[in-house]
Amino acid sequence: MSWGIIATWRMAHDGVVQASESLRSNGQAGDAIEATIQTVEDYPYYKSVGFGGLPNAEGILEMDAAFMDGDTFKIGAVAGITDTKNPISVARKLSDEKFNSFRVGEGATKYAMLNGFERKNMLTQRAHRIWEKRVEEIAKSNLSPYDGHDTIGAISLDTKGSMAAGTSSSGLFMKKPGRVGDSPLSGSGFYVDSEIGGASATGLGEDLMKGCLAYEIVRLMGEGKTPQEACDQAVYTFHDKLTKRYGKAGAFSLVAMNNAGQWGVATNVEFTFSVANHREKPAIYLANMGENHQTIIEPITQEWLDAYEKRIKAPID
Amino acid sequence: MSWGIIATWRMAHDGVVQASESLRSNGQAGDAIEATIQTVEDYPYYKSVGFGGLPNAEGILEMDAAFMDGDTFKIGAVAGITDTKNPISVARKLSDEKFNSFRVGEGATKYAMLNGFERKNMLTQRAHRIWEKRVEEIAKSNLSPYDGHDTIGAISLDTKGSMAAGTSSSGLFMKKPGRVGDSPLSGSGFYVDSEIGGASATGLGEDLMKGCLAYEIVRLMGEGKTPQEACDQAVYTFHDKLTKRYGKAGAFSLVAMNNAGQWGVATNVEFTFSVANHREKPAIYLANMGENHQTIIEPITQEWLDAYEKRIKAPID
Repeated sequence: MSWGIIATWRMAHDGVVQASESLRSNGQAGDAIEATIQTVEDYPYYKSVGFGGLPNAEGILEMDAAFMDGDTFKIGAVAGITDTKNPISVARKLSDEKFNSFRVGEGATKYAMLNGFERKNMLTQRAHRIWEKRVEEIAKSNLSPYDGHDTIGAISLDTKGSMAAGTSSSGLFMKKPGRVGDSPLSGSGFYVDSEIGGASATGLGEDLMKGCLAYEIVRLMGEGKTPQEACDQAVYTFHDKLTKRYGKAGAFSLVAMNNAGQWGVATNVEFTFSVANHREKPAIYLANMGENHQTIIEPITQEWLDAYEKRIKAPID
Repeated sequence: MSWGIIATWRMAHDGVVQASESLRSNGQAGDAIEATIQTVEDYPYYKSVGFGGLPNAEGILEMDAAFMDGDTFKIGAVAGITDTKNPISVARKLSDEKFNSFRVGEGATKYAMLNGFERKNMLTQRAHRIWEKRVEEIAKSNLSPYDGHDTIGAISLDTKGSMAAGTSSSGLFMKKPGRVGDSPLSGSGFYVDSEIGGASATGLGEDLMKGCLAYEIVRLMGEGKTPQEACDQAVYTFHDKLTKRYGKAGAFSLVAMNNAGQWGVATNVEFTFSVANHREKPAIYLANMGENHQTIIEPITQEWLDAYEKRIKAPID
């Protein structure tokens, strides 16, 4: 039977490895998504998701997450949630609600507390120190404060043919309070239909929501395109359109998987992702925008991985 | 030259009349959207938008709004904003921001205050009294507390060929704090591309965001479908799909206009809307779901209008 999981960035890999074990043993698609994203949320050295994520301009860590069930289209989402260990789990629980399934700000945090989710100070000392340094730098120079929008976005397929999608992000570093990106927004941050496939995004949320690319990729797969064809067509067409009409396209990278476990990605920046399915062992790849609206995908090198490991754990003075 | 404006519900009509005067005199599409929606936000007897809107379960009036420019795809949005006279104007101003253009909760209200938008207690005595009564009723019986999701959503075309979209809503009456519907979500609540057309939604946000119908309608118009064909195809196909896969489809109603000023609507409930263009005087219509995936559209009757007027102004004991 087919199964598979694909997720954005190198940081997703450990979760993808675990999820692939579970999916191979007939684990459920939604469980695989939740477990994969929890792994990333829990790891303190990933600066853009969950624990260890970088805070907003006021020093408060606000998080966004969403979960979608591809069988029923159920969606749960949170934005600007604080002090909550696993935003993805809150989003998943919200997807069972017929009403009030997307909650923001204090209302989101309140929902998490009332429903017994673990309360946790998500701001690490390391993240706080990075924030302090940035505040000093901005005061000195006229730097654009925004940086880092490496959302974890994942799509899974289980052996029963069910699919699910999920996202989790602490958003732009130094974002203004209450800023929300594409991650919790259906069609922009994620979309999944078990009869077709799913897609998820990472990048500049403000620009991703101008294109609804996750929905568009799923739609194109529904027309019979492979995930790679769908990603290439949706992402590069919109990249060109936005460049022409808005003047500039922010970074965006999309991953997709269809209901046969085939996958695809497209990106307008250097982008890593992790993928596994019934035919391919879990692996990390590096993707770049090629010429003629095609994506160049190569296996990651040990050199790249070593440099990454060193970078994320480098001492902060 | 072509121009036009279409907006959801009878409540939009006075704004549509004014906007049609402005558009005929070469007024700008975004200005027409903002003015139309402000008119609805300012009117105290519309219970689901702006001043006079019904509060959440805790008695607090939280509002959602969005603005999209069809020339550039610029989007601004707010969700869960409080104490602000015109959320649509805040959303429009946010659309000029390259970053942080979607703000929720306290962060949204803070943005409005810091940018000089008028602070106002938006909860009328009438709305508060309706809320009190509902709280009593719920305590007595086991009523589902949710009701009323009549978002104003509007699409405009100006004589220069620019288009814009906007939405504003106080969301579901008795919603949980921080609940967000489709109104501020690109692709679900609204979408517009001046080279094609635009669409906007009203209805149960939780279900609308499962379908990304505003994006889908614009896309279908881009394939050459008329606005009416695009609305019928997107809305009824998804209505059936959601009924099958989720068990039930909530209320949803979509309006659309293309860049020639032609318009269309589709709905799965009784639905009123107002429209005007270079050929047709401003008028209110009544729409219903017909058989075979088509929409039945009739002029509104004076009897309907009289009953509506009486209903919205009926004394609250």
